[in-house]
Amino acid sequence: MSEFGFDLIATDGAARRGRVTTAHGQIDTPAFMPVGTAGTVKAMLPQSVAGTGAQIVLGNTYHLMLRPGAERVQKLGGLHKFMDWPGPILTDSGGFQVMSLAEIRKITEDGVRFRSHIDGSYHTLTPERSIEIQNLLDADITMAFDECTPYPATEKQARDSMELSMRWAKRSKEAFEDRPGYGLFGIVQGSTFENQRLESAQALQDIGFHGYAVGGLAVGEGQQLMFDTLDYTCPALPADKPHYLMGVGKPGDIVGAVARGIDMFDCVLPTRSGRNGQAWTRRGPVNVKNARHAEDPRPLDAECPCPACTQFSRAYLNHLVKAGEILAMMLVTWHNLTYYQQLMADLRSAIEGGTFEAYVAQFNALQAEGDIEPL
Amino acid sequence: MSEFGFDLIATDGAARRGRVTTAHGQIDTPAFMPVGTAGTVKAMLPQSVAGTGAQIVLGNTYHLMLRPGAERVQKLGGLHKFMDWPGPILTDSGGFQVMSLAEIRKITEDGVRFRSHIDGSYHTLTPERSIEIQNLLDADITMAFDECTPYPATEKQARDSMELSMRWAKRSKEAFEDRPGYGLFGIVQGSTFENQRLESAQALQDIGFHGYAVGGLAVGEGQQLMFDTLDYTCPALPADKPHYLMGVGKPGDIVGAVARGIDMFDCVLPTRSGRNGQAWTRRGPVNVKNARHAEDPRPLDAECPCPACTQFSRAYLNHLVKAGEILAMMLVTWHNLTYYQQLMADLRSAIEGGTFEAYVAQFNALQAEGDIEPL
Repeated sequence: MSEFGFDLIATDGAARRGRVTTAHGQIDTPAFMPVGTAGTVKAMLPQSVAGTGAQIVLGNTYHLMLRPGAERVQKLGGLHKFMDWPGPILTDSGGFQVMSLAEIRKITEDGVRFRSHIDGSYHTLTPERSIEIQNLLDADITMAFDECTPYPATEKQARDSMELSMRWAKRSKEAFEDRPGYGLFGIVQGSTFENQRLESAQALQDIGFHGYAVGGLAVGEGQQLMFDTLDYTCPALPADKPHYLMGVGKPGDIVGAVARGIDMFDCVLPTRSGRNGQAWTRRGPVNVKNARHAEDPRPLDAECPCPACTQFSRAYLNHLVKAGEILAMMLVTWHNLTYYQQLMADLRSAIEGGTFEAYVAQFNALQAEGDIEPL
Repeated sequence: MSEFGFDLIATDGAARRGRVTTAHGQIDTPAFMPVGTAGTVKAMLPQSVAGTGAQIVLGNTYHLMLRPGAERVQKLGGLHKFMDWPGPILTDSGGFQVMSLAEIRKITEDGVRFRSHIDGSYHTLTPERSIEIQNLLDADITMAFDECTPYPATEKQARDSMELSMRWAKRSKEAFEDRPGYGLFGIVQGSTFENQRLESAQALQDIGFHGYAVGGLAVGEGQQLMFDTLDYTCPALPADKPHYLMGVGKPGDIVGAVARGIDMFDCVLPTRSGRNGQAWTRRGPVNVKNARHAEDPRPLDAECPCPACTQFSRAYLNHLVKAGEILAMMLVTWHNLTYYQQLMADLRSAIEGGTFEAYVAQFNALQAEGDIEPL
């Protein structure tokens, strides 16, 4: 089994083309990680996810600890076997979902006590337990347990939260069992305050991680403030480790973040949108339910290789969404994940070829042009 | 394009092994037709449906006329192209669903006036309009418009209903445009009254159809009464035409009906059960949600070639069903359709090999034995 590692293959400006090596395989970066919350990328078979080009999926500690339970997953051979995903898996720490989903929660220095949104039962997540759960799940990439600072936050609130996360980061590192091919990522916090972000980035490097995530963004601050934050945060991250922007985002967010030195992304957007009949394309978002598609025999995107685009018309997809058919969710999800992976592949080629700036210009022009005209 | 036809290849007792030839391909019988109500076999891609061994799917006139509309489907190239199913399609006449789904309905000699369950709009179905719709959809097999007699019915109610259906059958025949490879089936009614069933079967043969369906069964009369009805109805059907038992059924119903001379079946059971976490197997029904599966690493059926059985454990399927994941619906549906097609393939081999009786004994023994013991 190879060491956990990161190779920087090429750069173009601040944009980076790299490769992460894990116990279960390699990940070409910039990479988008589909979210497999409860041990399934919703509405997709794992081989279909792989078929879109995805090399790694994300699992959620919060969901999996509550159902079916981390010990049970381990007993069944770990998350890879459980969900039949032989490739790399990254698990989040549970910190974010505890705050957004659990019914009652109490944060102390020790950790978070909360009530399950599923059955009302009480649970505690600490840095130690979060790392243990991720280890039981057999995550290739384990995330340090942190508090995702709410937005907006005062400077004081942000600092208190960031400093707590840094103490938890240290405990996470101590709890993490070093094994070949398995990595632990720290998470930079500090809201939109430059000094706090830089301090957090330094604190994490003092502890030492296999990769560095930027947390607490895409929480309502808007794209410009997110980019501004990345502008000063990314240069403070070690160049020889992967940089992961958590929970991002729309295609334009991803392109802008790659331009600023981010290597990895995850977001529920392509899968959640897919279940709601919203497609993401080279030409921007398309509401498949819109009546203008009802008699349109053309594919969603004539250049897309996914089943939704190669087998079916816009009229059919429109019909399926209106009828509430499961196949609508399957197909639009499949399309969205295919588009996202195609976007990442294009970004990687552009960086390798030294044509990143030209690619971004082309990307922006097509997005601005918008969807094809109705017939 | 070949003629619509039926070849009887082998018989074993009353059981028949045959082949139906249509404009869009052949159907080996006994055949089970998955139901694709609104232009999709729910939760399945069409190539996955074909992969289970299905050679024909069913479409519902009632659903498709209301949404997206038969004229629209025709404009888009017909139902085969619309739903990307290149094989044969059978459409029902709409008669059954009008009675079971529409909000208000009024039956006259002319036809049925009803309100859509989707948007409350008013529509009329007559034999002529039903045949026209099925023609617009480009159904390989068109069903005559009939009234599915409610159960129980008095002898008088059953007779009035049956005689109306026979008059509608004649109008259906007159409205049907004969084209090579396209067939029209008549539907025998008469509830559970032998004399009426025989009279109906004769009336339909006097009109002349490409195939003969038995309607008005599996509506609450129970398996024994259904078999009794088939015992006298099947021999009254022409041996050189396909016999189709509508809306049936459980695996045991199918085996018993094949033993009595039925060639074709359709039922929502495998797909609907699949969405509710109920699997059908060689060993009978299995409630995937049952807690006994929660830590069971074994497949649902070790001999089944479907993705649910070859890729995943019972524990994983149990988790998906409990979590309400779409993948649960996809996988259990896939399994059920695979099992149903395997059952039909086994029945065909047994009839061809002259071992039908032995196969039925083996089928009954395994079903009686029930699911594998918990670990």
